[in-house]
Amino acid sequence: MNNNNSILIVGSVAMDSIETPFGKRESILGGSATYSSISASFFSKYINIVSVVGKDFPKKYIGLFRSRKINIDGLQIREGQTFRWKGDYNYDLNLPKTIYTYLNVFGSFKPVIPDYYKGSKYIFLANIDPDLQKEVLSQIKRPEIIICDTMNYWIDKKRGPILKLVKNIDIFLVNESEARQLSGETNMKKAANFIMSHGAPCVVIKKGEHGVLFFSKRFCFYAPAYLLETIKDPTGAGDAFAGGMIGYLSSVKIINKEHIRKSMIYGSIMASFTVEDFSVKRLLKLSMRDINTRYNEFKRITSF
Amino acid sequence: MNNNNSILIVGSVAMDSIETPFGKRESILGGSATYSSISASFFSKYINIVSVVGKDFPKKYIGLFRSRKINIDGLQIREGQTFRWKGDYNYDLNLPKTIYTYLNVFGSFKPVIPDYYKGSKYIFLANIDPDLQKEVLSQIKRPEIIICDTMNYWIDKKRGPILKLVKNIDIFLVNESEARQLSGETNMKKAANFIMSHGAPCVVIKKGEHGVLFFSKRFCFYAPAYLLETIKDPTGAGDAFAGGMIGYLSSVKIINKEHIRKSMIYGSIMASFTVEDFSVKRLLKLSMRDINTRYNEFKRITSF
Repeated sequence: MNNNNSILIVGSVAMDSIETPFGKRESILGGSATYSSISASFFSKYINIVSVVGKDFPKKYIGLFRSRKINIDGLQIREGQTFRWKGDYNYDLNLPKTIYTYLNVFGSFKPVIPDYYKGSKYIFLANIDPDLQKEVLSQIKRPEIIICDTMNYWIDKKRGPILKLVKNIDIFLVNESEARQLSGETNMKKAANFIMSHGAPCVVIKKGEHGVLFFSKRFCFYAPAYLLETIKDPTGAGDAFAGGMIGYLSSVKIINKEHIRKSMIYGSIMASFTVEDFSVKRLLKLSMRDINTRYNEFKRITSF
Repeated sequence: MNNNNSILIVGSVAMDSIETPFGKRESILGGSATYSSISASFFSKYINIVSVVGKDFPKKYIGLFRSRKINIDGLQIREGQTFRWKGDYNYDLNLPKTIYTYLNVFGSFKPVIPDYYKGSKYIFLANIDPDLQKEVLSQIKRPEIIICDTMNYWIDKKRGPILKLVKNIDIFLVNESEARQLSGETNMKKAANFIMSHGAPCVVIKKGEHGVLFFSKRFCFYAPAYLLETIKDPTGAGDAFAGGMIGYLSSVKIINKEHIRKSMIYGSIMASFTVEDFSVKRLLKLSMRDINTRYNEFKRITSF
């Protein structure tokens, strides 16, 4: 269940209710740790998640993590209800309208990293309170790579702690509006430079249908998105991106420019599959062959 | 002044007044035929423009076309004032607010293609009344390639004629909001399919800072934009894109997939230079070496 190449993911496991122009689903599996771990599981057999759910969390969802060989020893099961979120997307499928957010057991979540997770070489700190993200880093040995995400909510409440945290991680992920909010810059190059000026070695700006931008002092990389005609549910795309990215990076011998670039493409591809259906439904039907087919198509569509 | 490889550009030559967060300029050279012909002039010595200006049109601007070896025998000089437009861009540098539009002599423009322009192999129909674009096509021999642009104003007034026109051209250019407006689709792949279903063989969707998408039945190609930290004036970017595209295509022996892809990159690069300064100022300082340096950088930034 664990080895030198293991990936540690700390984030939420949630029950989502989603409405999009393509349908309506109640209490489906969601959460940042869910999407990212399932996405990463195509690249690695050694994934450990740390999260919390309530006693109401369905056994079938536990089984689903197990079916993907994801280690859930760090998934706390507490008295109370699982984190629940309801979102409503309109036709442009951009930012959803939040109908409700019940943090429930997630409200008092304190990540406890099981001892044998502490040597994980690849860390993904999905979007949780930046103070908790910092707390996770204090519990573990310095890994090979730390990827860290956040969201508008935390930028609003804890901008200072986020800007302190970024120097202790390797790759900081934000979406376009978060990059603007955090930096005060409308220009994405300036926004990335601002975040790097606070010590972030690398910044990834996720732009959804407009692709993704990678910035570092050494090099930049820009990729368009893999376009789809129908997006059923955009939830989890960013987390599936992060999962694909860290999953791919854990599968290569050395993390260099070439592999960073490829990890962004695998991330984009995992995001593109995710939004083709509700929850993790599309991901669960995937094979590595599907992923590589889309990777090759992506290459054909973008090479010149 | 003319040969088999000549490019014919029909569009506007204008005097713009522009305000952006980076400055203010009065009566500077603008217009779709201006930006596209100057952009194309880096790739071809045989460019013919057809347009109209008033008697007020400054001689120095005539000299400027000549300095780029652009043939202006088709530039009518009429009694009255040149087309004038004033636009105001705010910080996000997206769609400008139009302060005024005085069509002046352009209001009664009837493109007359000089006889020795009629065999031009490469045609760019910049954004004018689609009925006039059709009229141009009736005056010329079937060329190697016809690229055609439009704008929100014409989609609003003459959606029918545009959708009839697209089957008689080769590559139809629109920006993202125009694609939405014309097709009624929010998804760009669906929007392109809609336009192709009306007979357009190829559709290019220009997304500004988010890059560009090429669609055809045979293949697709997506490219991110070349990002800049400072954009002084976004005016003319789309026309410079078209100019770079047709200029490059006129310089190759055979128009195939590979060259179509490259033409999109050259187009993007010409657009990126254009917005670095007001009017065509940056373009006039360019060398082919600058263009190729940026092309190579673009390749480095996007290859994986």
